[in-house]
Amino acid sequence: MSSGDTTVFEGLTFASHPLGFTAARELFLPRLEAGLIEAAAGEGTLFSAARYHLETGGKRIRALLPPLLAHNLGANPSQLDEALELGLAFELIHNGTLVHDDLQDGDSQRRGKPTVWAHYGMQQAVNVGTAMLLLGLSRVLSTRVGGRIIADVNLAILRIVEGQALEFELQESTSPTVAQWERMSAGKTGALFGACLLGGTRVAQGGDRACDAAWQFGLELGIFFQIQDDLLDLVGNKGRDAVATDIAEGKISWPVAWATQNADPERAARLLSIVKTRRADTTPELVSEALAILHASGAIAACIDNVRTQAHALLGSPWAALMPGLVERVVEPVRHVLSDS
Amino acid sequence: MSSGDTTVFEGLTFASHPLGFTAARELFLPRLEAGLIEAAAGEGTLFSAARYHLETGGKRIRALLPPLLAHNLGANPSQLDEALELGLAFELIHNGTLVHDDLQDGDSQRRGKPTVWAHYGMQQAVNVGTAMLLLGLSRVLSTRVGGRIIADVNLAILRIVEGQALEFELQESTSPTVAQWERMSAGKTGALFGACLLGGTRVAQGGDRACDAAWQFGLELGIFFQIQDDLLDLVGNKGRDAVATDIAEGKISWPVAWATQNADPERAARLLSIVKTRRADTTPELVSEALAILHASGAIAACIDNVRTQAHALLGSPWAALMPGLVERVVEPVRHVLSDS
Repeated sequence: MSSGDTTVFEGLTFASHPLGFTAARELFLPRLEAGLIEAAAGEGTLFSAARYHLETGGKRIRALLPPLLAHNLGANPSQLDEALELGLAFELIHNGTLVHDDLQDGDSQRRGKPTVWAHYGMQQAVNVGTAMLLLGLSRVLSTRVGGRIIADVNLAILRIVEGQALEFELQESTSPTVAQWERMSAGKTGALFGACLLGGTRVAQGGDRACDAAWQFGLELGIFFQIQDDLLDLVGNKGRDAVATDIAEGKISWPVAWATQNADPERAARLLSIVKTRRADTTPELVSEALAILHASGAIAACIDNVRTQAHALLGSPWAALMPGLVERVVEPVRHVLSDS
Repeated sequence: MSSGDTTVFEGLTFASHPLGFTAARELFLPRLEAGLIEAAAGEGTLFSAARYHLETGGKRIRALLPPLLAHNLGANPSQLDEALELGLAFELIHNGTLVHDDLQDGDSQRRGKPTVWAHYGMQQAVNVGTAMLLLGLSRVLSTRVGGRIIADVNLAILRIVEGQALEFELQESTSPTVAQWERMSAGKTGALFGACLLGGTRVAQGGDRACDAAWQFGLELGIFFQIQDDLLDLVGNKGRDAVATDIAEGKISWPVAWATQNADPERAARLLSIVKTRRADTTPELVSEALAILHASGAIAACIDNVRTQAHALLGSPWAALMPGLVERVVEPVRHVLSDS
């Protein structure tokens, strides 16, 4: 949808007093937090490990999106309840992928606590992550709109797993591309944001066109999340130095993919060989050399350009206006880069 | 359902020429095999690894159950197509759980080929197993009855994961019980058999009562699969010696759970300590000692009794008559034990 096309909203009513993101968080978060722990009620290690993971917290953005959007699309109280249910479901699904993620990346700590695999072992981490996805799907199915959105939600989870698989492929590729990076990000982060906004729209009785457009906006928001994260790792946040941990960790970030495609072959090969050096052997000198290649090749500038374009498109979308404060908050960490132009 | 209660079939028609299990296999298997590989079509490691796993083969019992049952419940050709679709879906789901299983159990070979984790690494095995579950769910949703059975299928997968989690808990428990063993087996094996028969019944326009009864029969069939497997490991098949690999592998089989509950505490503790001895340290003498405890405590006899009772109930069920040859085939490996009485 072009940002000017508001005909997708035809037939929808808008809340006379739209909620902002911060107000929605204050309003809905206590209920969502309690609901999450309750959603993982059950006997045995599977459920206690799921609750253990959920208690490590998180920003709960995915849980907040459906009720925020549904409210501002004029949902009545019972529709808002459904939206909260969907929010719980999406947050469970997101956290299921995190449990698998921590295992796959070998991360043994999350928010200062041992991760599920570190605490309960690899075997149970596989079970717990999978179970949380299924609990989320089951929660979606328990809502009135469940039957209409379940195929999209299921597809979103498949896209997350595909994105995850593609990330490992990228790390082993000798010629990663920006297109692959985008497919990976659209899957890993975009698809579930898409499902969150589609769910919130469907609950408020949005039609197919509105739902498609909501999904698309969520997808773009998710991709932006990723590219901004990649950029911040290299250029630093306000008051924070660039740390370039991605280079040490062997991550194929957007700028690395861009440089591999666009820098001269010798430099590109050198960059890739530094990125692929084992973390323990990646000295600060190697990181500096990689950063220098990224700057000199124009990869950082291209990334900043891309971030600017995407940020302005997101901020100008009617979906941003429907969720006041959300996109502003997402864009905040790169605001200094936007205003440099 | 008691085996005499045939009112659950009210309103259903029966095929004038019911297919036997072997005939159904010859008729449907080529199409199912081709469909399975096609179902995992897609670019990238995720899909090629899924096809790699599917090509290791298998008996495809879960794929055959829905079309076999639907055919014999008088399904028309288009309903039979749906049943074949469901069969594909359930086989994908089953194989997704096997990919996770192999990783969790550290099994590096399946049918003479390296398992997915051994070939593609732990990270991708987590992705591949999860993706196959989602592909199966998506396939269920693509059928006309999908919306009506998706919640049950999703629940069945959750039960499998719970069963898997419970199996690891049992292995660490100091007092495993027969009730826990049954919950584990009902989840690990019973739930998906239940879903297969429920799906085949629903496709043939069976009502809720018939679907519930089909699920229940599948559940019992799955539990029987497990208990018979546990028994055969200890008493040996026709022409096969007892190998008792379960004892060396630390598996809490039905007889071990029964003995832990019913043998005198000293013997029970000794048995459990042998079962829990690391595989490398479990000498043939220790295995013989464990076997002796199982025999002397009455655990083997109790297991044989249980297997007999269950086999007769299954063979006498109207569901067995609806799938001629299926239960006979399932019961075949323990037939020598049944006729000993």
